Amino acid sequence: MAGIVVTETPRADRDIVDAFAAYGVATVHEAQGRSGLLGSQINPIQSGVRIAGSAVTATVAPGDNTTIAVAVEQCRDGDVLVVAPTVPCDMGYFGDLLATSLRARGVRGLVIEAGVRDVADLREMGFPVWSRAVSAEGTVKGTLGDVNVPVSIAGRIVEPGDVIIADDDGVVAVPRLRAAEVLAASKAREEKEARSRARYAAGEIALDVNNMRPLLERAGVRYVDYATYLKEQQA
Amino acid sequence: MAGIVVTETPRADRDIVDAFAAYGVATVHEAQGRSGLLGSQINPIQSGVRIAGSAVTATVAPGDNTTIAVAVEQCRDGDVLVVAPTVPCDMGYFGDLLATSLRARGVRGLVIEAGVRDVADLREMGFPVWSRAVSAEGTVKGTLGDVNVPVSIAGRIVEPGDVIIADDDGVVAVPRLRAAEVLAASKAREEKEARSRARYAAGEIALDVNNMRPLLERAGVRYVDYATYLKEQQA
Amino acid sequence: MAGIVVTETPRADRDIVDAFAAYGVATVHEAQGRSGLLGSQINPIQSGVRIAGSAVTATVAPGDNTTIAVAVEQCRDGDVLVVAPTVPCDMGYFGDLLATSLRARGVRGLVIEAGVRDVADLREMGFPVWSRAVSAEGTVKGTLGDVNVPVSIAGRIVEPGDVIIADDDGVVAVPRLRAAEVLAASKAREEKEARSRARYAAGEIALDVNNMRPLLERAGVRYVDYATYLKEQQA
Amino acid sequence: MAGIVVTETPRADRDIVDAFAAYGVATVHEAQGRSGLLGSQINPIQSGVRIAGSAVTATVAPGDNTTIAVAVEQCRDGDVLVVAPTVPCDMGYFGDLLATSLRARGVRGLVIEAGVRDVADLREMGFPVWSRAVSAEGTVKGTLGDVNVPVSIAGRIVEPGDVIIADDDGVVAVPRLRAAEVLAASKAREEKEARSRARYAAGEIALDVNNMRPLLERAGVRYVDYATYLKEQQA
Amino acid sequence: MAGIVVTETPRADRDIVDAFAAYGVATVHEAQGRSGLLGSQINPIQSGVRIAGSAVTATVAPGDNTTIAVAVEQCRDGDVLVVAPTVPCDMGYFGDLLATSLRARGVRGLVIEAGVRDVADLREMGFPVWSRAVSAEGTVKGTLGDVNVPVSIAGRIVEPGDVIIADDDGVVAVPRLRAAEVLAASKAREEKEARSRARYAAGEIALDVNNMRPLLERAGVRYVDYATYLKEQQA
Amino acid sequence: MAGIVVTETPRADRDIVDAFAAYGVATVHEAQGRSGLLGSQINPIQSGVRIAGSAVTATVAPGDNTTIAVAVEQCRDGDVLVVAPTVPCDMGYFGDLLATSLRARGVRGLVIEAGVRDVADLREMGFPVWSRAVSAEGTVKGTLGDVNVPVSIAGRIVEPGDVIIADDDGVVAVPRLRAAEVLAASKAREEKEARSRARYAAGEIALDVNNMRPLLERAGVRYVDYATYLKEQQA
Repeated sequence: MAGIVVTETPRADRDIVDAFAAYGVATVHEAQGRSGLLGSQINPIQSGVRIAGSAVTATVAPGDNTTIAVAVEQCRDGDVLVVAPTVPCDMGYFGDLLATSLRARGVRGLVIEAGVRDVADLREMGFPVWSRAVSAEGTVKGTLGDVNVPVSIAGRIVEPGDVIIADDDGVVAVPRLRAAEVLAASKAREEKEARSRARYAAGEIALDVNNMRPLLERAGVRYVDYATYLKEQQA
Repeated sequence: MAGIVVTETPRADRDIVDAFAAYGVATVHEAQGRSGLLGSQINPIQSGVRIAGSAVTATVAPGDNTTIAVAVEQCRDGDVLVVAPTVPCDMGYFGDLLATSLRARGVRGLVIEAGVRDVADLREMGFPVWSRAVSAEGTVKGTLGDVNVPVSIAGRIVEPGDVIIADDDGVVAVPRLRAAEVLAASKAREEKEARSRARYAAGEIALDVNNMRPLLERAGVRYVDYATYLKEQQA
Repeated sequence: MAGIVVTETPRADRDIVDAFAAYGVATVHEAQGRSGLLGSQINPIQSGVRIAGSAVTATVAPGDNTTIAVAVEQCRDGDVLVVAPTVPCDMGYFGDLLATSLRARGVRGLVIEAGVRDVADLREMGFPVWSRAVSAEGTVKGTLGDVNVPVSIAGRIVEPGDVIIADDDGVVAVPRLRAAEVLAASKAREEKEARSRARYAAGEIALDVNNMRPLLERAGVRYVDYATYLKEQQA
Repeated sequence: MAGIVVTETPRADRDIVDAFAAYGVATVHEAQGRSGLLGSQINPIQSGVRIAGSAVTATVAPGDNTTIAVAVEQCRDGDVLVVAPTVPCDMGYFGDLLATSLRARGVRGLVIEAGVRDVADLREMGFPVWSRAVSAEGTVKGTLGDVNVPVSIAGRIVEPGDVIIADDDGVVAVPRLRAAEVLAASKAREEKEARSRARYAAGEIALDVNNMRPLLERAGVRYVDYATYLKEQQA
Repeated sequence: MAGIVVTETPRADRDIVDAFAAYGVATVHEAQGRSGLLGSQINPIQSGVRIAGSAVTATVAPGDNTTIAVAVEQCRDGDVLVVAPTVPCDMGYFGDLLATSLRARGVRGLVIEAGVRDVADLREMGFPVWSRAVSAEGTVKGTLGDVNVPVSIAGRIVEPGDVIIADDDGVVAVPRLRAAEVLAASKAREEKEARSRARYAAGEIALDVNNMRPLLERAGVRYVDYATYLKEQQA
Repeated sequence: MAGIVVTETPRADRDIVDAFAAYGVATVHEAQGRSGLLGSQINPIQSGVRIAGSAVTATVAPGDNTTIAVAVEQCRDGDVLVVAPTVPCDMGYFGDLLATSLRARGVRGLVIEAGVRDVADLREMGFPVWSRAVSAEGTVKGTLGDVNVPVSIAGRIVEPGDVIIADDDGVVAVPRLRAAEVLAASKAREEKEARSRARYAAGEIALDVNNMRPLLERAGVRYVDYATYLKEQQA
């Protein structure tokens, strides 16, 4: 099973990519209509870090990280490497040597639906990683996957060149051609949330801030005091 | 499916509730006869924090956090919000806006058998959360659950007004009417443990501190040196 | 079901055991031919800690930690306690009292495929633990397992006297009789990795550092630019 | 930790209980407003069987089935035994001997959020079981849970005397006091579904049978032919 | 979040689609270079059934099956409906009414990474289903997903018009444009396997049938008799 | 990483091995003091089948079934092949070709903590399999594990030559040197259970058959009628 390596894949404008780092994953996810979020099985190995970059994608065979080595060559400054195993596998595909190599090329982080190792080193050198597991179990080399093709990762399709935003809440992918539009929507949403936050801090509650009382009424929600409720239960 | 909102549910005495914060979840759980502990799928998003408060309970529909907004209004100073989805769902039902709202009302934390988001913000603002997952996946509004009815959460029944204690070990619920009794038992247990800890630190071991040697003898435990053991295995 | 307690099990030379603490779990695992690593379900409750010690093994009945108390007596300075439940169980078998007792005997840490509790205390006192879960759910006493027999834990067989190395990446066991050999191989591997790291930092990539290009050629990997790839997909 | 055994708990009218056997779990669940359904981790060990009966509830300690033996004595003709472990545990709490005993008392089946064994025998003797696991791992006797108290099982609260309906789709509990009302609603729903089924079989589709087209329009769903869609994706 | 419905998506030639039903999922998966297989979390609710058909794809919101109703209208004779929830959810999105509707349109089966219900009815009417769970938990209507767009399901990307083959081993998708080629390769593989099967039945073993002995030699596999092995272990 | 293949491993007496087929897994497991049972993640792909045989063990690399082919040569009439992956992996390591080969050698079944495929064929040819998963995902060849060394599988250590008994309840391993003793104990237990079964069928209950009432009394179990219980709860 020979792999394919797609080269010269387009990225979104660098200014746009960089600007996403100002917005959290939850905000961007909402701003693009609740789509593109990777499943919650992908978690950061560090805390308090947020990155944005352009996706270089790769698929890897079970227990074999050959394709990561191939993908490194396709990475450049401002990229995020996104790795999907073709079969569920939690082995440690990635460690501090590959991180050193990616860092030397200006890569901003790794997203992988599998295991990584050398996590103490990765944290110390500040190379950000989102993974499904931590495992010292090393991989072999021999079977090739693909580089820069669309991948299915954690329940989502990620295409090469998608903008990847990742923080403590997880990882979201924004399609390259929608990047400018979603960036603007993220900004708008953040401003709206800032206004809401001020109202909440002042003691208002969501039922009023979001004008939800008519919804409750239509749904027929029933308020009953505790004493009455107890009596009804015994009836 | 219209929801019911029970109002004016009784709480335990505030002095008793507050006093629980001096005891760890493991201690309280033992002190009330090993009951009331939520399952270990519920984990803190922060570390080193312990809270005690009165439960306001809510059930939520899958992917719909309408009822959390309704429950906020029933919360008051000293409460802990306890949220159980009616169906397993790890989406992000709760983020920094709702936390801001709860904080403004004096609520001490959230326990939810589902996902939360904005966790970097939640940690920074110091609003304590125990959840099953972290997910930026937002919810919709439209379907109503119930507020302040008994809920099944992480394998336990929690009633409104139960005292909730939560720390790095998990979450335990103490029935409102047993609160004073369990508080006293917690104190007694802690004092006993302090005495045991001193003996362990001085080199005694549990077999003697807990007087377990007769149990071993009755069970017929057999001590055999390694050389003899190896020979027996080959026989 | 009465247990057996094997006494006077041999350990590897103390110098060798101690020397392993210089090498990470991933390095040791590779150095002994990718074997002996416990599954990734075992995670540290702390971060940034590495230990090496000699295994004292124990099996425990579900929800019953009697055998841990028995095993403590078999532990001595430089040991690591390794506990496997006979049936999957995430209850809290171990807390700060037993940690105090182990510490008083010079034990370096605990590895358990089950739950532990009092984790805030364990972290504060600096007693290192690798476990499958955190749970305040206490255990009972009454049923005996075995001490210092071979155990199946997290997919591996661990024998009493094996050298245990544990860090943020997980836990690896080195057979006692192979300890010297694996230590030397670990040293060699670390030196080789240091040389590789320097090359990666200087911008070389794994395809060249590991001489992988011939492998790619044999496998028939195909490089194609993005525009051509898109055309092929529509054909 | 001594248990409590509640005796002489009331059941729903036998005629009503028996009548539920005509309706599937999915129908009853809908008919009572989408509530009371146990989680999908509970599966039948047989296929094609449906039962209805009155709940006798029990909690069991991890790896200890003492309380099941106690609960048997509280069971009578027409009952279903509902067993919840206080801590997740997949051991085999129940086998053909206890089934023989329950059958002799007229009990209609077992629902347990844990493991069972002797399943070939259980199938052969036709004693219906819904469980979370199959395991030959036997339990011990010694620790007591409770009988006929409200239990939290598979995400639901089940009370003694609830009507339990179970089939290939799972298990649903109907509160005793609502049984007559829910039975009527189940009948109504079944009749409505029969009418819908005829329309579907005749080629009508849900968009028309359920009058959903206005909903789609309000939501703004957009129909686009494939050729146009492909062009938009490349834009 | 309004959905998009793509209409008039192309299918592969009907003769080719139908011909796939002669080959098992494992054979087809191998024949197309080990790709396209959905993850093993997707299981048949029946046994001994194999289907082949053209994919109509749909995404569904958590706990909401509105889009399935929309997708039905896009299905025609010879199709297989493929449904992916946007967020993991095991509720029962599909039951006997929708199956009746699909059957009336000549649809050959359903593949869904979520739950289904009425499974006794589905088995009785012979409508084949591959799902992740069985659950009587019904869904609501209100939120729209997409129809006939590429979906990420069980770790794979499935496009509308892909050929879907499903049997007791699982589900595989063959890209529409590769269908003829993969069909031929499946035939070739099956013939080769028939020859191998005859040799195995006659007593030959894979080491010889597949000419693996040189591989073992190169790898340096070592044969040692049991007595010698035991001695080495003690050394 | 070259593998080791141990040859001429001893088996238990054939008469003893065969005699185990008369006893269920649950009975044997109890008869040997509740040990040796593989975890409940291992399930039969067929139902109603029981086998007993001598273990030939093998470890396999992730996604690589080379060692199974090697192990076949070490199998002979009356054996059961026991396969443990060195890392969790649910791929399809085994299908109808290897089954044909094993059957030709008189092998009685396969136990594997991984996936198998061609299950419709395996069921039709009547070759019994206990596995962790079903998956059509094929494996590669290239990396060697070991044959006939002790393996850790599903939480247990299995040695070559152990007697393996497997049925609908799971899989249990009996150490070769204890086989005669455990066989006798199984017979004794079965006879005892037959006597108990008769008593249960006649209406006696476990509290009396097993003389458990004194245990309840010592534990302090409390019987209370429902009306009193309700009053106590409100107190």
